[in-house]
Amino acid sequence: MAIEQTSSPATTFFTHLKGSTISFLTKIKHVIIDFAMKIKKIGVDDPRRVMHSLKVAFAITLVSMVYYLQPFYNGMGDAGMWAILTVVVVFEYTVGATLSKGMNRGFATLLAGALGIGAESFASLFGIAVKPIVLGSFVFFLVSIATFSRFIPSIKRRYDYGVLIFILTFSLVCVSGYRVEKLIHLAHQRASTIIFGGATCIIISMCVCPVWAGEDLHKLIVTNLEKLAIFLEGFGSEYYKISQSSDKSFLESYKSVLNSKATEESLANFAWWEIGHGKFRFRHPWKQYLKIGVYAQQCAYHIEALNGYLDTKVDAPSEFQKLVQEPCMKMSSEVGKALKELALSMKLMIYPSNSTIHIENCKKAIDELNSTLRSPMAAKWDILETIPVIAAVSILIDIIKCVETISEAIEELSKKAHFKKMKNIAIEKDEKSSFRLHRGGAIKPIDVDDGDENKEGIAVTTNSSDDLGIIVQDHLEHHTSKREIN
Amino acid sequence: MAIEQTSSPATTFFTHLKGSTISFLTKIKHVIIDFAMKIKKIGVDDPRRVMHSLKVAFAITLVSMVYYLQPFYNGMGDAGMWAILTVVVVFEYTVGATLSKGMNRGFATLLAGALGIGAESFASLFGIAVKPIVLGSFVFFLVSIATFSRFIPSIKRRYDYGVLIFILTFSLVCVSGYRVEKLIHLAHQRASTIIFGGATCIIISMCVCPVWAGEDLHKLIVTNLEKLAIFLEGFGSEYYKISQSSDKSFLESYKSVLNSKATEESLANFAWWEIGHGKFRFRHPWKQYLKIGVYAQQCAYHIEALNGYLDTKVDAPSEFQKLVQEPCMKMSSEVGKALKELALSMKLMIYPSNSTIHIENCKKAIDELNSTLRSPMAAKWDILETIPVIAAVSILIDIIKCVETISEAIEELSKKAHFKKMKNIAIEKDEKSSFRLHRGGAIKPIDVDDGDENKEGIAVTTNSSDDLGIIVQDHLEHHTSKREIN
Repeated sequence: MAIEQTSSPATTFFTHLKGSTISFLTKIKHVIIDFAMKIKKIGVDDPRRVMHSLKVAFAITLVSMVYYLQPFYNGMGDAGMWAILTVVVVFEYTVGATLSKGMNRGFATLLAGALGIGAESFASLFGIAVKPIVLGSFVFFLVSIATFSRFIPSIKRRYDYGVLIFILTFSLVCVSGYRVEKLIHLAHQRASTIIFGGATCIIISMCVCPVWAGEDLHKLIVTNLEKLAIFLEGFGSEYYKISQSSDKSFLESYKSVLNSKATEESLANFAWWEIGHGKFRFRHPWKQYLKIGVYAQQCAYHIEALNGYLDTKVDAPSEFQKLVQEPCMKMSSEVGKALKELALSMKLMIYPSNSTIHIENCKKAIDELNSTLRSPMAAKWDILETIPVIAAVSILIDIIKCVETISEAIEELSKKAHFKKMKNIAIEKDEKSSFRLHRGGAIKPIDVDDGDENKEGIAVTTNSSDDLGIIVQDHLEHHTSKREIN
Repeated sequence: MAIEQTSSPATTFFTHLKGSTISFLTKIKHVIIDFAMKIKKIGVDDPRRVMHSLKVAFAITLVSMVYYLQPFYNGMGDAGMWAILTVVVVFEYTVGATLSKGMNRGFATLLAGALGIGAESFASLFGIAVKPIVLGSFVFFLVSIATFSRFIPSIKRRYDYGVLIFILTFSLVCVSGYRVEKLIHLAHQRASTIIFGGATCIIISMCVCPVWAGEDLHKLIVTNLEKLAIFLEGFGSEYYKISQSSDKSFLESYKSVLNSKATEESLANFAWWEIGHGKFRFRHPWKQYLKIGVYAQQCAYHIEALNGYLDTKVDAPSEFQKLVQEPCMKMSSEVGKALKELALSMKLMIYPSNSTIHIENCKKAIDELNSTLRSPMAAKWDILETIPVIAAVSILIDIIKCVETISEAIEELSKKAHFKKMKNIAIEKDEKSSFRLHRGGAIKPIDVDDGDENKEGIAVTTNSSDDLGIIVQDHLEHHTSKREIN
């Protein structure tokens, strides 16, 4: 009792304060640790982001130091400022975006500078009292037109930044109040600074660990197709509750496909500016990628609907479900395989041919399903019990149609982008006869680049030649083993 | 013959040239006319775009002229340049975007300026040979961290532009090579210029025909719900080929909902910056709008699947289709009406209550359908014939579930945003007893603003009071007539 009484209200208060301070500090510690983990994840997910940050910092430091340390140093002044400004706003994550901004900035500055000097000379013809009015009207007129032009979709897509710079430069030149001779001197100095800054950005972005928008678009579309394929391949065993794995994440991965349209479009826009790189030529048919993307999205909509029929609360499939089990499982796994083959042929940039077998198998499964449903067995079921099963099957059939469209679009892409055909690969294969001996080791993959000789190649379907079938199989296995090695 | 011979090759060539020149000119004329029509359409579709262009032009001209005509005119110099630059880059289409950029620019400039001056003073402690190295390391270190932070989603969403300006200002201040006293003078001048430019933008953007991102988001969600409703209301008669109208555009309008997520997100981001305006308070629950948007999108996915069952090639519905015609038509029209009521209650910002009746009707229709399918009539059909019908019905049932979720989300919004409740409207109505006499004329609508007194109001469902039902009906009719008048 006596001991308890010694704890006066003040002591209790301080004990309480101490406790709450400690708990507050622990909370802060947790927040900081969480934040640090999040940031680490961003870097680990795509290490190119860390590289990009270092590249930008390097470019800005380089440009700053060049102007800071120049021998005729006399306070940095305008020139250096414009160089730094250019680097800060032009250096983007992908090469295409950097090129797009750099080009837009360069050309818009030149055009607006010339127009501004013209407007200045024209306004100088009038008296000193009228000149500001003439210049003001010019600025008002051109700026309102240029601003409005930013609402035109084709301009907004590609030249939005250029129009912004046009407005900026024209206004600056017009109201600078300098004489034309001084303006021309200034224009010369500023143009060279902007070119120096822009060129630094473009060179660093292209030469040091470049991030190509085109390559990213290619990978994004392939990954999206793979995500759809993974869902479809796994759907059958999930639907019939015979799946062994406890990891259900593959059932959710397709969701990112639903909303990837905006990313695809911006990547395709940037890819348009990019020069040839890796396996992609200068005018690679990026638009066709967008088309495939739209079809993949449509397929994802159907999958979203199908996902609603994966009732996790029920432990065993219904009797009617069991009746159609075989064709259903076949349909879903074959359509998944077809998509996987399509994704793989896109990834390797070869003509798609293996997918047709799987689509044929799907169609056979549909026939099988039809005959099962026509059998006297099917008639005895309560129609209400059959509704969800039939709805799921019907969506599955829609998905097969979707995949056929995707297959056609990829075939069109292979033609437009001169993908390697089977025959060429076979010839190359004969030349590299030692390949098979090394299978499974750390060998280089066959170089499937799109040379001009492709044009002579003839599309050979796998059905017509067993040998070619093996070769493609080789390719696939080889590709898998390569992935495992890396 | 003689006459024919007089047309020498030269004459033929010139006749041909003339012809092709004329056709070339006609082509150019057509291209120009097409382009002009397109531009006119952009302006007519949303006249606020024209207004925006004039606002930007006015702001730039104003700022230019202030600096051009200032009495101590002595060549425009840096200050004017920074004001123009600020206006060009800060003035955005919506108030929220302008506020976001303005605030970002202001605070980032202050922070980076202060840090820059600190770095400059610190580096000055070292000798002249070491100073550039110290400054360069500072720039490299801070720029790389800042650039990386732009990949963090929460920063990217709201402070991306601020980080860019931070990088720019810090680099400029660090390597300007000025002494600290001069830097402080310069900072003062530049800050006042940026504040002047930014304030001009914000004031013009808020006071002259403001475009509020929040209002746009509100309208977008309402319009999206209406688009879905229009499809669903029309689906029944389209599916049963009893539609009278030849205009099928309502079947396509829902497609824009599929991809409106990106727009919704950016509008919600900008709305976060906006002050209270019209019926929206300062901290309106914009996040809840995004939630409703996601559910609307999910509903649109199902509609996309349903749309596949509108076979335009078939002239008449199948026999089995006819069997379930009544409940099907009822389900689709009632779910459409429920969505329309929900959209309307959102538009008027009142508690949703009428929609529940329609959802109940939907459920009744589902029961009706179940008993139809259980009847001996249904058993005699070939199961293959029933597949597409059952699939469509099943999707329709999913859509009803979706609309229920939307209804719950809108109810949550009504609570969070303190929407007007029925009772309050009824009381107001008694006060404005002359309202009914003027119905149909050009009267002001009841002011459905979200006052504090709402908190005392109790949600009364329409079922419990016929009088309230009439009042809401009045509201709807009134609203329709108002739309017709305008």
